[in-house]
Amino acid sequence: MEKPTVRIALIGHRFMGKLHSHAYNMVQQLMDLPCRIELAVLCGRDPVALKSAQNAWGWREASTDWRAVVARNDIDAVDIAVPGNAHAEIALAALAHGKHVLCEKPLANTLGDAQAMADAAEASGKVDMVGFNYRRAPAVVLARHLIEEGLLGKLFQVRGTYLQDWAVDPQVPLTWRFDRAIAGSGSLGDLLTHVLDMTRYLVGEFEQVTAVSHTFVSQRPLPANFSGAGLGHAGQAAADAFGSVDVDDVTAVLAKLQGGVVGVFEATRFATGFKNALCLEVHGDRGAIRFDLERMNELDYYAVETATPTRQGFRRILATHPDHPYMQYWWPEGHIVGYDVTFAHEIYDWLSAIVRSERVAPDFMDGLRCQAVVDAIATSARDGVTVRL
Amino acid sequence: MEKPTVRIALIGHRFMGKLHSHAYNMVQQLMDLPCRIELAVLCGRDPVALKSAQNAWGWREASTDWRAVVARNDIDAVDIAVPGNAHAEIALAALAHGKHVLCEKPLANTLGDAQAMADAAEASGKVDMVGFNYRRAPAVVLARHLIEEGLLGKLFQVRGTYLQDWAVDPQVPLTWRFDRAIAGSGSLGDLLTHVLDMTRYLVGEFEQVTAVSHTFVSQRPLPANFSGAGLGHAGQAAADAFGSVDVDDVTAVLAKLQGGVVGVFEATRFATGFKNALCLEVHGDRGAIRFDLERMNELDYYAVETATPTRQGFRRILATHPDHPYMQYWWPEGHIVGYDVTFAHEIYDWLSAIVRSERVAPDFMDGLRCQAVVDAIATSARDGVTVRL
Amino acid sequence: MEKPTVRIALIGHRFMGKLHSHAYNMVQQLMDLPCRIELAVLCGRDPVALKSAQNAWGWREASTDWRAVVARNDIDAVDIAVPGNAHAEIALAALAHGKHVLCEKPLANTLGDAQAMADAAEASGKVDMVGFNYRRAPAVVLARHLIEEGLLGKLFQVRGTYLQDWAVDPQVPLTWRFDRAIAGSGSLGDLLTHVLDMTRYLVGEFEQVTAVSHTFVSQRPLPANFSGAGLGHAGQAAADAFGSVDVDDVTAVLAKLQGGVVGVFEATRFATGFKNALCLEVHGDRGAIRFDLERMNELDYYAVETATPTRQGFRRILATHPDHPYMQYWWPEGHIVGYDVTFAHEIYDWLSAIVRSERVAPDFMDGLRCQAVVDAIATSARDGVTVRL
Amino acid sequence: MEKPTVRIALIGHRFMGKLHSHAYNMVQQLMDLPCRIELAVLCGRDPVALKSAQNAWGWREASTDWRAVVARNDIDAVDIAVPGNAHAEIALAALAHGKHVLCEKPLANTLGDAQAMADAAEASGKVDMVGFNYRRAPAVVLARHLIEEGLLGKLFQVRGTYLQDWAVDPQVPLTWRFDRAIAGSGSLGDLLTHVLDMTRYLVGEFEQVTAVSHTFVSQRPLPANFSGAGLGHAGQAAADAFGSVDVDDVTAVLAKLQGGVVGVFEATRFATGFKNALCLEVHGDRGAIRFDLERMNELDYYAVETATPTRQGFRRILATHPDHPYMQYWWPEGHIVGYDVTFAHEIYDWLSAIVRSERVAPDFMDGLRCQAVVDAIATSARDGVTVRL
Repeated sequence: MEKPTVRIALIGHRFMGKLHSHAYNMVQQLMDLPCRIELAVLCGRDPVALKSAQNAWGWREASTDWRAVVARNDIDAVDIAVPGNAHAEIALAALAHGKHVLCEKPLANTLGDAQAMADAAEASGKVDMVGFNYRRAPAVVLARHLIEEGLLGKLFQVRGTYLQDWAVDPQVPLTWRFDRAIAGSGSLGDLLTHVLDMTRYLVGEFEQVTAVSHTFVSQRPLPANFSGAGLGHAGQAAADAFGSVDVDDVTAVLAKLQGGVVGVFEATRFATGFKNALCLEVHGDRGAIRFDLERMNELDYYAVETATPTRQGFRRILATHPDHPYMQYWWPEGHIVGYDVTFAHEIYDWLSAIVRSERVAPDFMDGLRCQAVVDAIATSARDGVTVRL
Repeated sequence: MEKPTVRIALIGHRFMGKLHSHAYNMVQQLMDLPCRIELAVLCGRDPVALKSAQNAWGWREASTDWRAVVARNDIDAVDIAVPGNAHAEIALAALAHGKHVLCEKPLANTLGDAQAMADAAEASGKVDMVGFNYRRAPAVVLARHLIEEGLLGKLFQVRGTYLQDWAVDPQVPLTWRFDRAIAGSGSLGDLLTHVLDMTRYLVGEFEQVTAVSHTFVSQRPLPANFSGAGLGHAGQAAADAFGSVDVDDVTAVLAKLQGGVVGVFEATRFATGFKNALCLEVHGDRGAIRFDLERMNELDYYAVETATPTRQGFRRILATHPDHPYMQYWWPEGHIVGYDVTFAHEIYDWLSAIVRSERVAPDFMDGLRCQAVVDAIATSARDGVTVRL
Repeated sequence: MEKPTVRIALIGHRFMGKLHSHAYNMVQQLMDLPCRIELAVLCGRDPVALKSAQNAWGWREASTDWRAVVARNDIDAVDIAVPGNAHAEIALAALAHGKHVLCEKPLANTLGDAQAMADAAEASGKVDMVGFNYRRAPAVVLARHLIEEGLLGKLFQVRGTYLQDWAVDPQVPLTWRFDRAIAGSGSLGDLLTHVLDMTRYLVGEFEQVTAVSHTFVSQRPLPANFSGAGLGHAGQAAADAFGSVDVDDVTAVLAKLQGGVVGVFEATRFATGFKNALCLEVHGDRGAIRFDLERMNELDYYAVETATPTRQGFRRILATHPDHPYMQYWWPEGHIVGYDVTFAHEIYDWLSAIVRSERVAPDFMDGLRCQAVVDAIATSARDGVTVRL
Repeated sequence: MEKPTVRIALIGHRFMGKLHSHAYNMVQQLMDLPCRIELAVLCGRDPVALKSAQNAWGWREASTDWRAVVARNDIDAVDIAVPGNAHAEIALAALAHGKHVLCEKPLANTLGDAQAMADAAEASGKVDMVGFNYRRAPAVVLARHLIEEGLLGKLFQVRGTYLQDWAVDPQVPLTWRFDRAIAGSGSLGDLLTHVLDMTRYLVGEFEQVTAVSHTFVSQRPLPANFSGAGLGHAGQAAADAFGSVDVDDVTAVLAKLQGGVVGVFEATRFATGFKNALCLEVHGDRGAIRFDLERMNELDYYAVETATPTRQGFRRILATHPDHPYMQYWWPEGHIVGYDVTFAHEIYDWLSAIVRSERVAPDFMDGLRCQAVVDAIATSARDGVTVRL
């Protein structure tokens, strides 16, 4: 039987657009996908860069008019890979036109937008997904399996950090990531959301948060061409113009989660020495796990072994065995995968769900719940109060 | 010239008494002490165990009457190694009799006691010290030196944990460590105080704290002989009697420190898989350090090297070089030292300060300041408010 | 100006063919290549699997007749990704038809074949390369740069291992990797060659070797369909037929290298617990480096700092900074790359050399020199003598 | 019942004498010894330093005449802690006078001496022991237990190194450790013997060795006072006099051991960056272990878990649980021990064996067997041949 075809429009041709395009190519070429895919249209605002990206990444068409694209009948699915302030409008339009939607994280910059998106997705019956890609690192899925099988027992504590250091230098220019109007928040929306989602995935729902935020560098040089939109960290600063940072450089949170779990969380761009340390530790009465994105292929697992206490220890599982999640598609055991495969796994599962008319997690409702936690954290940090969810 | 002699009385013959005795023997035999010491009297409540300890550890006399001992003219210095609820009474009596005093941590179970002790010590002119021994791990002193030399630059963040897991099993009996009347608090006083002191030592004073505490196991079997007092973690549980835990199993804190430093702290006895993970990470604009007590001989140090960004990385310093703090007294490079040397270093510095009539840190004022932070944390956790110091 | 086009034929559609195809797609889409490439023909022996591979990986044509393909005028470059016993015939034919050739490692199964290939390549004036892909892990190139800049000083010692454990189970069937006629040797040709090449790249030429080899499991079940050819480790064993292993499970070598460097090397498929530990340590009088393929994105670097001996330590460099070799093409700092990028880097450099009519290393001469060391090791292990090169 | 008393004479008051003295004090004060001990006489050649050491370490008498001391009737046991060239004469005299003997490693500088010592010990019926103290690191004993219980299954391979770097600087003076007449050999006798003994303890007997040795720095400045004898690594160099190094800086060995185990070993003083890396890895068909003396409190253990291959990984066991070997005498779990406890454990076991009239391992026969391997390695390295044992 012929495999069905899913025709895709990708909105965004900057860094995230590149990663998503690469992921589409990987799922087609290397994974056993239950459908064929057509890289139909790549959308963006800069016609020249867009054309170049279209050719390099193998998209059939390019368009600067996303509204027209999401309305087309020959598009089945829309992938939104632009900054958070544009998510809601695009996603709502795409859903209104009956498209399946994959939306980058965080789902939206405001709780209202997120709510509208989740409502629309629920009403649409289409397959909606939010791009918390780190859920799909093989080691993280393995952690979920261990927890589901009860190997950690009753959970007590979770400890999560996302530590980066690229903002330490005060000469790092005021790109969109420092601009609340575009990014929604700083380390909170950019980094902590990943930790929050991973915690929801592995541990459960948040019930209460108490937070502090701080901005260490409040003025930064304006970039030469201050337009924003998805170009990663670096950039060229203008000679002498400075602008105000209105987002958090660090946000830290004390939380209570369902089942009485105690959580401590922190995201920062000022953790000198750490480049990408999304770390999660979960402790239960039968075991514990520990994950660090800088060593993405590894999961540390500790089993309580009451009968042989002298043999207990955190074991480093190199999650590259063919039986590890997704790893049958990649390399022989011990040959590690990179950051990019998390996007391939995400897209693989989204496309598979589309073909099978099933739900997939994390969906917009997950994105909304995560956003509700973000909102509570922002409120707590602003008002100095504990916020219940 | 003959070295002066310091005549010592040690109050406490349980685990801490053993460690202190061992430390006295080490400083005498292995370090170049500016005085001779006399292990004059060992005090305790259990005459049989006391006698046995006296003989094993080399004390000239034993006594069950500490009041009489601290009043004796042939004693110069009193070392208090009993649980926190007895600290104030003994220390005040010893100071009143003109003795130098070394007191185990935490200084006291209440802020009032701590204040009285610090006042008395200040008035006495004697050499007072509180036993935050981990300050004197060579790697921690090295961290202090790096920070003092400016190698970390302006400090941004500190992250401290003290993770243990011995309380996870609900059958662990209700020893004194779970009893507020004796221990003052749980993970807060027992574990977090070490983190707080180390933070004060390396980073600076606390200005504000927001905390949560939680008790996971609220009923525990009573030990067969429920008397408490310093016997470590284990113990034999009575057949069927249970008692209530009235201390915290975990305490977590968000803090602001002087100079705008943001701190996140956590102490817990429920971090399955961790045995003694007193970890501290400090980030500044020129560098960072990282310490873990489970690997006490190591300090990770990261230097920002703007000109050669491709060579930056956390370096693992094995703090066993003869030029590392205190290490000229121990083994050849690469041959590690154990937990016990931190007590030898502490006692060495206390005795040296006595001989030289100098102050030594951490003194009772440090103990008081630490206790003030503990108090603020307890208040914050109880009332759900942020507390300024 | 229009970029030139390089038209490629890939011989081999099994695991290595898949990896090379993926690499071509990556260099096209993600790297800034100085040419356009045409994935012209994919060659293989199994028509059905070949067709499926052709479609999945984006090759314009498929062919089961490699001889005809390498003779075609519309092919510029031939990439040989089949087991070692077929390398010489294909490479010699391709060179004879004036093609640039990239050949998987080891260059050949015999020294005679390797010599003939190197001679033909030298005579051809074409761009020849041998696929020692691990040279192009960013961390390994960084190690080379550190050594070239003199940061390790005069070199003393090198220590290299390639540790895997997939052969420990005696039920692992007798695939082609255990068959001397196809594979040439066992751990020696499959694994140690990578270590030898990396050593030549970082340290220098071998002058003398003394080796031992051993086979722990001499009989293995025949696979259900014993045909061999490149499908990774696993396979289904036939019910009851066994065959003899005639290759080495482990080979270990003591070596002297140019400049008086002492080397110790080992490759094994029986190192229970290790999955892919290609480790190299190089020590000089000014510094040292350490690499482990299981943590491919990291390089440990130690600098002798005579003036500050208390700050010395191996630093873990996460080789993901945009200034690290090749990393401008990949992800933001701290987001790791996988095993596959080493092939992309190799192919990128081969294609770039073709466009620029330059040599590239490692070329067939490097492959020959590596094979000469392999030959000397095999002789030494067989005859129990030290062999000079 | 009164415990018997063992009266001890210690020969050697330099670094090893200090460590042994410290160990006697620890076993008395902190371990549950089945005897009382009397630190009767400390022997040495330098009367002033000897007197000072006697006082500091608690020895009742001091003597510069070891011959007289080992003949005394009020001495039960002789502990020899001087360089290897003096071992045989002292040990033979002590045994002849009916003393129990503990002798530092290596047992002797020549095989003949070692044989004579083992013969005399066997004939004496006294408790003889050789000081391979690292056997008694708790993690190493744990490794032995795991192997004895069959948890590693049939053994395949062992890989051992002892890496230090203190000799890299050519200005390090020509102390006794570079003098064959005193030390017997260089890295071979000083470092590799520890690896060989640990291998014999954990894996089994050596059957065949092939070795290379090399000296990187052949001339070194003479120390200001070139007398030798046990003072560790450093020393002050004379202004301009140089002398020849006649020992090995590095020795590497390929070996076959009983049961078909393949071994690769290396000891070096030129491994820049490593301070004390005595590492041992043992692989069997059911598991593996890994030990590194720089992290002496840890043992890595890997269990083959065929049914759950996705959970396999090297676990880091922190060997500080009260059930770990010897750890009931030390600190609470997670509080590490130092290098010095290995001597305490050794002396504890020697004294216990004396009291119980039992043998203890490693005895002089073990020392002899180790020396036979050393001899075979030296022969192999000198003559370029494989030597069978």
